[in-house]
Amino acid sequence: MGEERKGGEEEAVAAARAAEQARELQEAAAALLTRTRAEEEALRRRAVALQEELRRLRKAAAAQADSDKVEEDLDRATCLISEGDVASLLPSKTHGCFLKMFLGPVNLRATRKEVQLKVKEEYNSYRDRTALLFLGFPVVLLCLRSWLWNGCFPALPVQLYQAWLLFLYTTLALRENILRVNGSDIRPWWILHHYCAMLMALISLTWEIKGSPDCARKQRGVELFLCWAIMQGFVMMLQNRYQRQRLYTRIALGKAKRMDVVWGETAGVEGQLLLLCPLLFLLQGFEGYVGFLLLRTATTGVIPEWQVVVCGILLIAMAIGNFANTVDTLMAKSRFKAKMKKSKSKRDLGTCTSPKGSSPIDSAARA
Amino acid sequence: MGEERKGGEEEAVAAARAAEQARELQEAAAALLTRTRAEEEALRRRAVALQEELRRLRKAAAAQADSDKVEEDLDRATCLISEGDVASLLPSKTHGCFLKMFLGPVNLRATRKEVQLKVKEEYNSYRDRTALLFLGFPVVLLCLRSWLWNGCFPALPVQLYQAWLLFLYTTLALRENILRVNGSDIRPWWILHHYCAMLMALISLTWEIKGSPDCARKQRGVELFLCWAIMQGFVMMLQNRYQRQRLYTRIALGKAKRMDVVWGETAGVEGQLLLLCPLLFLLQGFEGYVGFLLLRTATTGVIPEWQVVVCGILLIAMAIGNFANTVDTLMAKSRFKAKMKKSKSKRDLGTCTSPKGSSPIDSAARA
Repeated sequence: MGEERKGGEEEAVAAARAAEQARELQEAAAALLTRTRAEEEALRRRAVALQEELRRLRKAAAAQADSDKVEEDLDRATCLISEGDVASLLPSKTHGCFLKMFLGPVNLRATRKEVQLKVKEEYNSYRDRTALLFLGFPVVLLCLRSWLWNGCFPALPVQLYQAWLLFLYTTLALRENILRVNGSDIRPWWILHHYCAMLMALISLTWEIKGSPDCARKQRGVELFLCWAIMQGFVMMLQNRYQRQRLYTRIALGKAKRMDVVWGETAGVEGQLLLLCPLLFLLQGFEGYVGFLLLRTATTGVIPEWQVVVCGILLIAMAIGNFANTVDTLMAKSRFKAKMKKSKSKRDLGTCTSPKGSSPIDSAARA
Repeated sequence: MGEERKGGEEEAVAAARAAEQARELQEAAAALLTRTRAEEEALRRRAVALQEELRRLRKAAAAQADSDKVEEDLDRATCLISEGDVASLLPSKTHGCFLKMFLGPVNLRATRKEVQLKVKEEYNSYRDRTALLFLGFPVVLLCLRSWLWNGCFPALPVQLYQAWLLFLYTTLALRENILRVNGSDIRPWWILHHYCAMLMALISLTWEIKGSPDCARKQRGVELFLCWAIMQGFVMMLQNRYQRQRLYTRIALGKAKRMDVVWGETAGVEGQLLLLCPLLFLLQGFEGYVGFLLLRTATTGVIPEWQVVVCGILLIAMAIGNFANTVDTLMAKSRFKAKMKKSKSKRDLGTCTSPKGSSPIDSAARA
């Protein structure tokens, strides 16, 4: 009995000590948070003021004739602010309706560069993995149709593919929006393009695909769509490989913001670009053509459903948008090159490499 | 000419100064990040050690007969750690496959209590808004059927509703997973339940709903489903009102962890519970019955599609799961009450109210 009482007293002392420790810990944590927040706020104010100043100076420099040295300084300063540790303190791009709709008002911005890079890396490897599926799924469907299904698609496998497309485009749109919040310069069109694709996948799910008397005719739309998907998957794989190579080269040269997602069409390395560009234009043409064929099947009364019409219109709209954006990117590229040639110096290549240039990558490799 | 040159020189000086400022800013930010990280790490280590100690003491206290004072100390310490500013430093729950699949490896944990509360608040108001739609959508559909559509649903409005359901359940599942990461104690079943509902909505989209010769018979499944949705929407609204009231009461008493999402069924305030509980059981019974009817229509050959069978099975599974979880919650509730009565003190009520108890709410109100 005495033993137990003594044990109980020890317990009580230990518990009181633990409660005291918890209180101390809470106070320390609260103090740390308050202090950090105040210091961050001070730095943020300085950074915003400097951004303003840089903008003003850049305008003034543009008016000057001989401003190479000035522009170099400005580039270096801009790069430090937008790429360094300060970047996480600056007000971020707004999250946008899409993210708010799906996730609510949660903060998706990573404060640490390593995390941002991890998100970007994961996005790239996600695209790699899905490109394989994107290519493989329709190939399997088309093969099975001739070998096993006697020229007629059964509904379920095609619907599975469509459901997967809906999921894929939703996740891509979510992830690209998250990358944007984290400072990526992805063109708004590519995100909009994924919204269109989401809508198309959703509509195609409601689209009745069985047509037992005359399959070849009634399922012509599905077949065309699958052909287009194969081509798309092939180009996606090529793009990914190319983009990744290119991004690493650019990061190594310190030329790119590390959060850039240069979606295939938006950029080019000389050699591969010669292969990629015609393929892209061909794909876009084919996309528009599939859209046109869908519209024709709807108007000639073979499949007179609204789904076919809307899918056709969406495909044509996406083809036009893709084309316009690819051309725009190529033009921006050649403008950039001309400017580089004019200034006759390779200074842009070294802009971001100076003080802390490659450190985020180093730390990511270390982590 | 001299004027211009002078302007250029001033520019150059200003640009050099800006570059210097950017460098200083970058250094300050890097230093702040490094320092903060180190201090956080130190606090985290202390907190983890204290958690261990508390776990050990609690085990020892459970073995003791007379341990009221000890348990009070332990409760207070636990509460401080899990609710205070320390909480954000402790390792969080893993994000789970669902979030990783949709969003990649992004960090969704808010470090500030205000943000966590905002997420929770938004989730509640989202549920309020959607409950209205959940109720209104099927009511409108059923009314239009008898007034406008001569007893036959056209495909498009029903499919719109189904697409909206898919979107709704996806967002709910995403948001609940995010709440879980942020420390909410939501039961895993309710999230699993939303996965099932997502699947059902997706399947129902592929489910052909037109049946022109004998609508009343062929669209019986859709009709039953809509009736169930009306009842579900009604109960959801009741639950939301009740949960919110209850959560605020509990927060005011310092009894609940503030991130608790006590999904309707999982808890009860005496008065309203008498109304809510029978309704919940009735709804669950009806859910199972609709599932059974769907299975019957499939087996008797009226709508012999696999979609009908799978939807039926999913509805029955959800009904059983909901029932089991409601009963389990009610039992946990009565156990808790019995324990409270036994200890004959209201100490639990005051556990979390001491040092920093209501501050997050205050600051949320201020923000």
